[in-house]
Amino acid sequence: MAYKLFALSLSFCFLLFGGCFAIRQQSQQQNECQLERLNALKPDNRIESEAGYIETWNPTNNQFRCAGVALSRCTLRRNGLKRPSYSNAPQEIFIQQGSGIFGMIFPGCPETVEEPFESDQQGRRDRHQKVNRFREGDVIAVPPGVVFWMYNEEETPVIAVSLIDTGSYLNQLDQMPRRFYLSGNQEQEFLQYQRQEVRGREEENQGGNIFSGFGGEFLEDALNIDRNIVHKLQGRDEEQDKGAIVRVKGGLSVITPPERQSHRRGSEEEEDEEEDRPSRHQSRGGSRRNGLEETICTVRLRMNIGKSSSPDIFNPQAGRIKTATGFDFPALRFLKLSAEHGSLNRNAMVVPHYNLNANSIIYALRGRAWIQVVNCKGNRIFDGELEEGQVLIVPQNFVVAARSMSDKFNYVAFKTNDMPTMAKLAGATSEIQAMPLEVIQNAFNLEREQAKQVKFNNRFNFLVPPREQSQRRASA
Amino acid sequence: MAYKLFALSLSFCFLLFGGCFAIRQQSQQQNECQLERLNALKPDNRIESEAGYIETWNPTNNQFRCAGVALSRCTLRRNGLKRPSYSNAPQEIFIQQGSGIFGMIFPGCPETVEEPFESDQQGRRDRHQKVNRFREGDVIAVPPGVVFWMYNEEETPVIAVSLIDTGSYLNQLDQMPRRFYLSGNQEQEFLQYQRQEVRGREEENQGGNIFSGFGGEFLEDALNIDRNIVHKLQGRDEEQDKGAIVRVKGGLSVITPPERQSHRRGSEEEEDEEEDRPSRHQSRGGSRRNGLEETICTVRLRMNIGKSSSPDIFNPQAGRIKTATGFDFPALRFLKLSAEHGSLNRNAMVVPHYNLNANSIIYALRGRAWIQVVNCKGNRIFDGELEEGQVLIVPQNFVVAARSMSDKFNYVAFKTNDMPTMAKLAGATSEIQAMPLEVIQNAFNLEREQAKQVKFNNRFNFLVPPREQSQRRASA
Amino acid sequence: MAYKLFALSLSFCFLLFGGCFAIRQQSQQQNECQLERLNALKPDNRIESEAGYIETWNPTNNQFRCAGVALSRCTLRRNGLKRPSYSNAPQEIFIQQGSGIFGMIFPGCPETVEEPFESDQQGRRDRHQKVNRFREGDVIAVPPGVVFWMYNEEETPVIAVSLIDTGSYLNQLDQMPRRFYLSGNQEQEFLQYQRQEVRGREEENQGGNIFSGFGGEFLEDALNIDRNIVHKLQGRDEEQDKGAIVRVKGGLSVITPPERQSHRRGSEEEEDEEEDRPSRHQSRGGSRRNGLEETICTVRLRMNIGKSSSPDIFNPQAGRIKTATGFDFPALRFLKLSAEHGSLNRNAMVVPHYNLNANSIIYALRGRAWIQVVNCKGNRIFDGELEEGQVLIVPQNFVVAARSMSDKFNYVAFKTNDMPTMAKLAGATSEIQAMPLEVIQNAFNLEREQAKQVKFNNRFNFLVPPREQSQRRASA
Repeated sequence: MAYKLFALSLSFCFLLFGGCFAIRQQSQQQNECQLERLNALKPDNRIESEAGYIETWNPTNNQFRCAGVALSRCTLRRNGLKRPSYSNAPQEIFIQQGSGIFGMIFPGCPETVEEPFESDQQGRRDRHQKVNRFREGDVIAVPPGVVFWMYNEEETPVIAVSLIDTGSYLNQLDQMPRRFYLSGNQEQEFLQYQRQEVRGREEENQGGNIFSGFGGEFLEDALNIDRNIVHKLQGRDEEQDKGAIVRVKGGLSVITPPERQSHRRGSEEEEDEEEDRPSRHQSRGGSRRNGLEETICTVRLRMNIGKSSSPDIFNPQAGRIKTATGFDFPALRFLKLSAEHGSLNRNAMVVPHYNLNANSIIYALRGRAWIQVVNCKGNRIFDGELEEGQVLIVPQNFVVAARSMSDKFNYVAFKTNDMPTMAKLAGATSEIQAMPLEVIQNAFNLEREQAKQVKFNNRFNFLVPPREQSQRRASA
Repeated sequence: MAYKLFALSLSFCFLLFGGCFAIRQQSQQQNECQLERLNALKPDNRIESEAGYIETWNPTNNQFRCAGVALSRCTLRRNGLKRPSYSNAPQEIFIQQGSGIFGMIFPGCPETVEEPFESDQQGRRDRHQKVNRFREGDVIAVPPGVVFWMYNEEETPVIAVSLIDTGSYLNQLDQMPRRFYLSGNQEQEFLQYQRQEVRGREEENQGGNIFSGFGGEFLEDALNIDRNIVHKLQGRDEEQDKGAIVRVKGGLSVITPPERQSHRRGSEEEEDEEEDRPSRHQSRGGSRRNGLEETICTVRLRMNIGKSSSPDIFNPQAGRIKTATGFDFPALRFLKLSAEHGSLNRNAMVVPHYNLNANSIIYALRGRAWIQVVNCKGNRIFDGELEEGQVLIVPQNFVVAARSMSDKFNYVAFKTNDMPTMAKLAGATSEIQAMPLEVIQNAFNLEREQAKQVKFNNRFNFLVPPREQSQRRASA
Repeated sequence: MAYKLFALSLSFCFLLFGGCFAIRQQSQQQNECQLERLNALKPDNRIESEAGYIETWNPTNNQFRCAGVALSRCTLRRNGLKRPSYSNAPQEIFIQQGSGIFGMIFPGCPETVEEPFESDQQGRRDRHQKVNRFREGDVIAVPPGVVFWMYNEEETPVIAVSLIDTGSYLNQLDQMPRRFYLSGNQEQEFLQYQRQEVRGREEENQGGNIFSGFGGEFLEDALNIDRNIVHKLQGRDEEQDKGAIVRVKGGLSVITPPERQSHRRGSEEEEDEEEDRPSRHQSRGGSRRNGLEETICTVRLRMNIGKSSSPDIFNPQAGRIKTATGFDFPALRFLKLSAEHGSLNRNAMVVPHYNLNANSIIYALRGRAWIQVVNCKGNRIFDGELEEGQVLIVPQNFVVAARSMSDKFNYVAFKTNDMPTMAKLAGATSEIQAMPLEVIQNAFNLEREQAKQVKFNNRFNFLVPPREQSQRRASA
């Protein structure tokens, strides 16, 4: 099936004239990808908030610059609300831990959800756009400029890792990641790096949101509210250290899709389908699911690729791989991003391979693995462990292989292409296997028998079980 | 209807895999959009010609660089002919004043118009490609490399404002705007800025056109003409100060579409349709409107968004907005540009909003407005008046609001996307209105009642009438 | 027909929303295309191999940088095998001389060709992906990341000129061309320029392939082979000067499409069609030509535009032009590249013209021509001879004209667009001919009669025969 998908993908490519290759910016400097050494990187900054914290990786690091991305990790404690914000570039958020709800505001889409108990004397009913659930293992796609908020209603902290694709064709400005907060008095998380970039310039170290920049009179008139409320919108009276994640006293009670009860008994696909159905409490206007606005306004925004999802590649001795691509998930097609979740058993390997059309940003979720990356000179530019919470950036066409050092090594790889294509250098469906034996023999200066071993010995696809098992299998 | 259009637009987006987001270059420098201060800019240079003049804004200014555009304004006096030229990037021309005719040469398209009295003894008849009319309020789309000329036959000077989108995917070279003149001896209008860029290099300050660079022998043979005519093509004998706009003695008499008689009685749509019909004096070859070449060779190249057009958003107390996008106008879809014409009554406001997917280059046509622009830090980076003839560049995702200071404030906003999407932060169909009340309350730290005011108090869409009227309306 | 094609092309453009314009990177520096002087460039480096050599042009030269491309030329002696490698950007290879076979490995495509005599005791049969023939005049399209190898089985050396389009939308990294070899111990051909770029850094001057960077243990397990073979894969025992082109003792015997016997009696189209049919020796699986994977896995990868092909433009006195575009050849559509082969008789001219939507990289195959190139200032930035083996880069919109100085001047022009559009400034279907006579007259300040000469005197299309003949023709 993976094979079929691939073929389908490439057919699409040609039909669409290259539509499945990401259209994105190259790194700005001529030599930004002359990387001689990669590093497994931890976040280098942490901003505390009332109900959680945000960690960031320095986006001006040359590995991030080469890949044209920025990364942050957000931890929400119970009742923590990540304040509404939008970004200047597409985001792909992976839920490492926890569950909760999120909202995304699509300008022009109808407010289809009606809160039942909210109409007051003036007959003002609270209608709003759909609110969605998320859980561990979800990938959430957030277009640039679209307001996003999220909330954790449970005891387990939510940990969300966000990739911002500043090199995207959707970002018309420079490569700096920018977060625009609608509320609060905090400094946005990437601002510090911008200050470093524009050295020598005196910069006020003060927070603010997009309302705080406007004159009070403008806002009074634009919103038809009084000065007191304006000051609150502007976050004036608020302490800065309340931050981007605030605590909701008593918890948030908004209408959300019904609780997922099926996802332990049913398959993940069914569950997801169920979530996609209209919630019970929706507008009776009846216009929903029945018009042009459906395509965007009801489009799927998340997909689970975690442990409970059905894998795309599976080998009980070695591990499992599950991907979310533009085929699964039209929003990814639009953002030209995808994600891969992998789980490797101890000593299982991922064969040497490369991404033809994407940079890969590998984030370790659990355990640790030994990873090697090789550049076009044949130099090993990474040779070390990747541990939980660290990230490794593998540029397009650079070759990577890995071996799990833990009972389970779990990772998520963000890829800068909605339909990433991978070329393997060993095993089934590898480049080696597709070459004529004589070419292998002569290219590598091998004896005939040796060439046969190179071509045929490994019959596993992508994931290789620990040696002992694999040998037993191969001779079976 | 605006709503439907939007929905349609976004549906298309997804269907086309992001086809409706502009694919363009990012600003070249890492920090070019770290703008701490915007300015309302007037043209900083003016080149006089025989029958008009061209004014330019410095394209190396960091606001223009960040947006990846260049701007010029061309004034044609009566009988002024802007000499044929092409550019290295797509152009969007707005007719601020006057009317006249223009030609665009599409290579490979047939010469469908035949001048009736031009056949001579040798039977050589003057056939040429279609010539078009333009009038005040028109947007004209000019692809890169396509030769364009225009002519004013009336007393009122023609004022045409041209945006050159150097950041376009259609420009494969660097970000400098380049104009290639087919005739004359003048220096092209952006050359001075290129000289400044390449400092220290001695540069001959001499004019020339693309023929003047070729050897005489090459041109004699290529055109099969004698040396005298070659010299004229090369503009050798001409004084440089004749310039890019020459006076046509006795006026130009070329076949153009019939005079628009309908546009005062009929609607603008009808008029435009009429203009699209074949002119009376066309080739009798019969192949026109009947073959593959139609799509490009007869494609619509202009559209009126001026005062006489029917608005997309209209509020008699506040003003009107009319846009030309890729939906109205396939040529814009190709160039990935659009335009918006706005007219605001005194004290009327445009609510705080941002463009999700475009930079906006706002040019004031008439009157003045107070404008504020806020960046992602919550800093107000513009707070001042924009007056007739000035331009303000608002980068993608930066928030802008405005209030008219004149009885009428008219502007045109060029946008670097053929299907620009706008997010409003106040009023009907705003992001605020689409958020659950509880999220507003907690994000902004408001009382319940205050949150309701923020969400519901302004029911106007985009344009807000002066306060007194708006209050009356809201309570009605 | 050329006309129809053009119209079709542009229709497609609009239908596809600009899909036919190349989406590519602009040159990185603001002023990289402020070229005041072009040069006819020879390769500046040569790396010898066992059975041939590779020559390269310096990709950091500002002309190459401006165009966003790199160029190399590979010569294979008899039995020379160019080792398998892939590149970080799309390639267009033109076969200047010789014939042979090549393979391209598409990840995920089935191994459809079965070597008949290769099954051994263990029942391991050698299946591999299709192997293709090439011959003089062929254009071969190689996507980025796709492994490519080629082989010369005949006495005549194969000379292959490769354009690497580093500015392509398919390359997400920086502008350096990168070659990833799967085997051997040589230094990749563009590495020296990268070293120059990263000055001051000590760099080991050692070769290697993508296997040599991995630890032995990783490869043993990934391929399930022993240490000896791993060392051979890594090219450890090999001398570096064996290089990228190795000699196959006794010659390579892989199954390839049947010998072309038709191409001397039949037309080129027929021949190509024949080559596209399944070879006799293919897998009996039967699934080929019968499923989704066809589109990509059996897509046409080459096309002949050489002397024996039927020309698109032909004038017996002047010469011939043949192009390979996205219409002929879907792989080019995907890579957004095209090629043009031209042949000019002595003293025949190419009229002044420019490419609206592409840079043109002109490589002289045979003979010499006098070429002039003019920029937007009207300055002649090239005025000289282009000789066999030299290359001249003409940026988008810059005007070029040429006159053959040899009995035959043959060239190939690589263009950075799959559907290049050319605008001519003289002769039939030129911009001049499509303008109204009065506009010509007034723009160029001509007498009426002179304007008529400019417009009508040259009735040739693109290619102009030597003057004497042309004059006879014009008066006929």
